[in-house]
Amino acid sequence: MAPNTAVNALQDGKRRQAQALLRDGEVWLIAARESGVRPEPALTLVAGVDVTWDSLFLLTRSEAVAIVGRFDADAVPPGWTVHGYDADLRALLRAEVTRLAARRVLLNISEDDPLCDGLTSGLERRVRGWLEPGPDLTGADLPDLEWDSAAPLLGQLRSVKTPEEHAAIREAVDLAEAHLREMAAAARPGWTERDVAAFLHGLCRRDGAEPSWGWDACPNVHIGPDSRPSHAPPGDHALRPGSLLHIDYGVRLNHGYCSDIQRVYRLPDGTPVPREVQAAFRACWNAIQAGADALRPGTPGHAVDAAARAALVAAGYPEYQHALGHGLGRATHDGGTLLGPRWPRYGQTVEGPVRADEVYTLELGVMVPGHGFIGLEEDVVVRDGQPQWLSDRQDDLKPLG
Amino acid sequence: MAPNTAVNALQDGKRRQAQALLRDGEVWLIAARESGVRPEPALTLVAGVDVTWDSLFLLTRSEAVAIVGRFDADAVPPGWTVHGYDADLRALLRAEVTRLAARRVLLNISEDDPLCDGLTSGLERRVRGWLEPGPDLTGADLPDLEWDSAAPLLGQLRSVKTPEEHAAIREAVDLAEAHLREMAAAARPGWTERDVAAFLHGLCRRDGAEPSWGWDACPNVHIGPDSRPSHAPPGDHALRPGSLLHIDYGVRLNHGYCSDIQRVYRLPDGTPVPREVQAAFRACWNAIQAGADALRPGTPGHAVDAAARAALVAAGYPEYQHALGHGLGRATHDGGTLLGPRWPRYGQTVEGPVRADEVYTLELGVMVPGHGFIGLEEDVVVRDGQPQWLSDRQDDLKPLG
Repeated sequence: MAPNTAVNALQDGKRRQAQALLRDGEVWLIAARESGVRPEPALTLVAGVDVTWDSLFLLTRSEAVAIVGRFDADAVPPGWTVHGYDADLRALLRAEVTRLAARRVLLNISEDDPLCDGLTSGLERRVRGWLEPGPDLTGADLPDLEWDSAAPLLGQLRSVKTPEEHAAIREAVDLAEAHLREMAAAARPGWTERDVAAFLHGLCRRDGAEPSWGWDACPNVHIGPDSRPSHAPPGDHALRPGSLLHIDYGVRLNHGYCSDIQRVYRLPDGTPVPREVQAAFRACWNAIQAGADALRPGTPGHAVDAAARAALVAAGYPEYQHALGHGLGRATHDGGTLLGPRWPRYGQTVEGPVRADEVYTLELGVMVPGHGFIGLEEDVVVRDGQPQWLSDRQDDLKPLG
Repeated sequence: MAPNTAVNALQDGKRRQAQALLRDGEVWLIAARESGVRPEPALTLVAGVDVTWDSLFLLTRSEAVAIVGRFDADAVPPGWTVHGYDADLRALLRAEVTRLAARRVLLNISEDDPLCDGLTSGLERRVRGWLEPGPDLTGADLPDLEWDSAAPLLGQLRSVKTPEEHAAIREAVDLAEAHLREMAAAARPGWTERDVAAFLHGLCRRDGAEPSWGWDACPNVHIGPDSRPSHAPPGDHALRPGSLLHIDYGVRLNHGYCSDIQRVYRLPDGTPVPREVQAAFRACWNAIQAGADALRPGTPGHAVDAAARAALVAAGYPEYQHALGHGLGRATHDGGTLLGPRWPRYGQTVEGPVRADEVYTLELGVMVPGHGFIGLEEDVVVRDGQPQWLSDRQDDLKPLG
């Protein structure tokens, strides 16, 4: 599939948004190579091109410059000034950094946020070597540049979505929900977790979509009390009357944006839904509502998580062992502020503020012994008042078949 | 698609091969997170699992230990001792490093080889922080560890193939060649570069394969004198009687291994092949032969390139602006020794020796003004004597239709 106009418009919008976040004298340097094997998520976001040899994409407030191997030059989209090279990019780079009057270089390095940590360690060393201060063989006498992490800029760029991005995510949410409705109508006693996944994969192929987090592990499917939540591929637990079916699913459309939704269903057996199952569903729903109520611009990520976590614990259930929510967009876990607890592994990502126009998941669940996993996940856009629900919120345990 | 037994056997073989390359006291530490968005090529090679949270895979001569988020624990294949964590992996890591009596830690950092440079800069800082010497809150009193690059080990691991890998690559070569034969028989006047690509993509979908370097840019297709070689998506140049069609194509099968082949064809127009086209084809063929003759264990990569380059230049053609060949395997550009010139951008990769059982491409081409691009690429296994051709070598300009 060749890049199409809609995709180019999305990336062009992100490039412009990034440039507006930069200050005079700053250059955001995105470095990548063999990106087909090892994608640089920031490059995908603002340029959407794969590169083979060492490649540098320089953004300032007013300019966008790409230095790439000669065979990649024709693949760089419009909006970038492109320089192709053969044997060595050093002279080109030093000349451009001089021309752009760069004093401060931002690199994609983040201890905490994987989506803002796109630069590899060896390539970082190379880039710093190419930009050593002083005159060199290329004749460019560079000043002592100031180096910093691009993560504050990039986190914000990823998480604050443009209107075109909102539309793209909504499209992915709508298609995932349509797939789930079709699956729920078709499901029959005897279907295994593997069968459920295969059915959804068939719908993906039919509709030209990919599972949001790959064919191996998306959807996650759990049937009954013996199937514990994990990212492992779907297994052999089978639907029987009265079984709970939990599913975590999303699709990525060809514009690259994804959805991420959890739903829970029950195969009817002629008896009412057990009381403890109903109670757990209600507690999850209420906890997500508490999170949504706290999701306002300016609130730190950990405070939103804490609101939902406290609601669930107050209802007598154990804490969920993950974050309440994550950014959603060009990646399923899209970087930026995380709505998570202050655990060491989350580092600074939960300290950031929620911002208007960000898109988050809100997700949590509880295991009901003897029945199975109740897990819900909705996708929402942050607004000044109540968040806007992108997904058609699940208000009740849905019957299958 | 769930990982199948054949894939597990391939990865298991690579894990054992890696362990045999390690010394006492050494631990190879593969760190990854959100690998679905940002794959760590070494992790794909030896474990083939995607991980979400910060994850560490430790290999010593005798042990294989995975420390991953609890939701990823079930997805780690057999052969690894798996520890799942929730809030913090530090205590687990320090305890394991102590238990393994590690004195030297190898990280995937390489300035020159992108496939051996899988560690990101922020994650490197995190890993070094977790392993600071001395006692810490976790109680583990670590010694001052020696740190080094895993690139020498990893480059060799990637490039020296097991028999199972040879079989997997051969399968990918055979399928790409079958696709090319089918395309050449079907091609008609008026077909554009885009049509050629669409035809091959249809064969990929039919046969459950992917283009080796992605749907956007594989195959590269060039028709006629105005289409210059690049990694850009196929364009609008159309086949006319007498046109040259150049194609760079490969497929990746579900075991993950790929092929990479260039072929050149001519649409007959009732006249003989022009003399200058024939001469260019012969010069390319001879230059590849010169490279193959030099491809012996122990020869440095740059010497193999130099043999082919000299043959082409001696025949009166300009130098190709790339390397003669690269490793081929789990990635199209598979890392390890590069058969390339001593240009700055190739760094140390062209200084390494050729080794028995490695798989390389041999590729080069020339532009024939007024006609188009003649480019050939073959896939070969290094043996003690002559290399073994995996591809059915192209000996003549093939007619289309």
